[in-house]
Amino acid sequence: MNNEELYNYFSNLQTNIVFQLEKVDGQKFLKDNWIKDQNENLRGHGCTQILEGGNLFERAGVGFSCVEGDELPASASEQRKHLTGKKFKAIGVYLIIHPTNPFIPTVHFNIRSLSVFDHSQSLWWFGGGMDLTPYYGFEEDCIHFHSICKVTLDKFDKNLYPNFKSQCDEYFYLKHRKEARGIGGIFYDNFDSLGFENSFAMTKEIGNSFCDAYLPIVERRKIIPYNQMHRDFQALRRGRYVEFNLIFDRGTLFGLQSGGRTESILMSMPPNVKWAYQYYPEKNSLEEKLYTDFLPPRNWLNI
Amino acid sequence: MNNEELYNYFSNLQTNIVFQLEKVDGQKFLKDNWIKDQNENLRGHGCTQILEGGNLFERAGVGFSCVEGDELPASASEQRKHLTGKKFKAIGVYLIIHPTNPFIPTVHFNIRSLSVFDHSQSLWWFGGGMDLTPYYGFEEDCIHFHSICKVTLDKFDKNLYPNFKSQCDEYFYLKHRKEARGIGGIFYDNFDSLGFENSFAMTKEIGNSFCDAYLPIVERRKIIPYNQMHRDFQALRRGRYVEFNLIFDRGTLFGLQSGGRTESILMSMPPNVKWAYQYYPEKNSLEEKLYTDFLPPRNWLNI
Repeated sequence: MNNEELYNYFSNLQTNIVFQLEKVDGQKFLKDNWIKDQNENLRGHGCTQILEGGNLFERAGVGFSCVEGDELPASASEQRKHLTGKKFKAIGVYLIIHPTNPFIPTVHFNIRSLSVFDHSQSLWWFGGGMDLTPYYGFEEDCIHFHSICKVTLDKFDKNLYPNFKSQCDEYFYLKHRKEARGIGGIFYDNFDSLGFENSFAMTKEIGNSFCDAYLPIVERRKIIPYNQMHRDFQALRRGRYVEFNLIFDRGTLFGLQSGGRTESILMSMPPNVKWAYQYYPEKNSLEEKLYTDFLPPRNWLNI
Repeated sequence: MNNEELYNYFSNLQTNIVFQLEKVDGQKFLKDNWIKDQNENLRGHGCTQILEGGNLFERAGVGFSCVEGDELPASASEQRKHLTGKKFKAIGVYLIIHPTNPFIPTVHFNIRSLSVFDHSQSLWWFGGGMDLTPYYGFEEDCIHFHSICKVTLDKFDKNLYPNFKSQCDEYFYLKHRKEARGIGGIFYDNFDSLGFENSFAMTKEIGNSFCDAYLPIVERRKIIPYNQMHRDFQALRRGRYVEFNLIFDRGTLFGLQSGGRTESILMSMPPNVKWAYQYYPEKNSLEEKLYTDFLPPRNWLNI
């Protein structure tokens, strides 16, 4: 395992993605390098790049971080409980984009490597994925997004896409609403089954495919006109995003529990959000179609 | 212990508070009686009363519920861990008011009784409190709110107010922000130390004092003119309220974990909320004064 190689890949990926997003939006991201105090339980550094009030992106954040901690939080070791409390190192890239236009979906992407030091042994695994959260659904977009995911993973093993797709459907689910967060994508965690070289190669391929999966959808939908009604529906649906991230998301809880940098972790929050009592869209509206045709998990590629 | 007496008190309190709030606002609350399916782990009924888009209250919810469950959730038995998983009954009133005018503070109030059935024994305790979350601080309001709390509790025991006041400061604290939610008030849980009759009498007095504690503040502040800048600050601060309720609040977690009615539990969410990266108010502004003079816990009554 080569830490420098991991570090360089993740760090460069952030730079590349921000470069592409700036090209599409036309505005520059703010770049915030940060260092975590050496005296705390968690040490490390990172770079938060954020765009607020862009031409297309109302709030977009791309974070890189490399942290070492003395005690692996429970939220990061659910499937390997004996490692809770061990020393660890985590490197990763985390991204979330909340576009202004409600016809462009919100997207989340994250890849990371985790190393845990247990006695004299060093264990490692990879995790991450990407998933799409439309406000107004377009089958074409869902198929495109899932196709890119499948093509990327098929290079390594044909079983990966169906496996990661169902993990994604299971993970991004709001139990208290009995509702999926969006139309899914791929999700993996505790992944080491291809061996280090190939697990890393796969993670890199996922990183390299993100812009191809998302940006064509932005280009297609950015020209659709919208009004306040569409914005209000977007704001209500963003409320679900907040509920998921603060109640269920392991990444958010991991960050906050381990004493991470709050502003970087909570850049996932949407810029503006509404809650209303028992809102349900009108019968046969485009808004209702989201609930009936897009949120219930679907086999988008008919495989 | 008389369940009927508890039931009647809590249920009538909801009616009385809604009556007073409607008088102040001028608009009627929506009244939603609900019953929980008999087949689930949690059975019961309740009444959610909510006002959205009122003349003064942008979103105000007053809930009454009476539920029985087969397994007491961990979040409700932190201080009595051996009771986790036992049969229980909970009756209570829960209230949250998000006014439109940013000069009127948000308020939260809740009182409840919990009975747990452990073998042949029946245990009970009370909990609740009220706390104030201003956007623009006024010392006069903080002193008034805390005075009513103190006078109410002093009738039972002079040690209660200082005790419940510091429990409140401790509980309504956002660890990840190192910030208090508001200017406090009173908070108590697992309370049985006055015996059943007096613990219930104290809980009733707290319930009866809520309108006196809050409504004079509404009357004083509703006439202050505000603009979009004040509203934006309010929306950003409401983001902290969401963070607290979804990450830390035991009542919210108890409700969602035990399979409670999502729309009634999440009526605590503010109607509209913003998040921005590393927002900090201008030097010497009224907004900064909230952080420097009001949020750090204070001994409001100089006792």
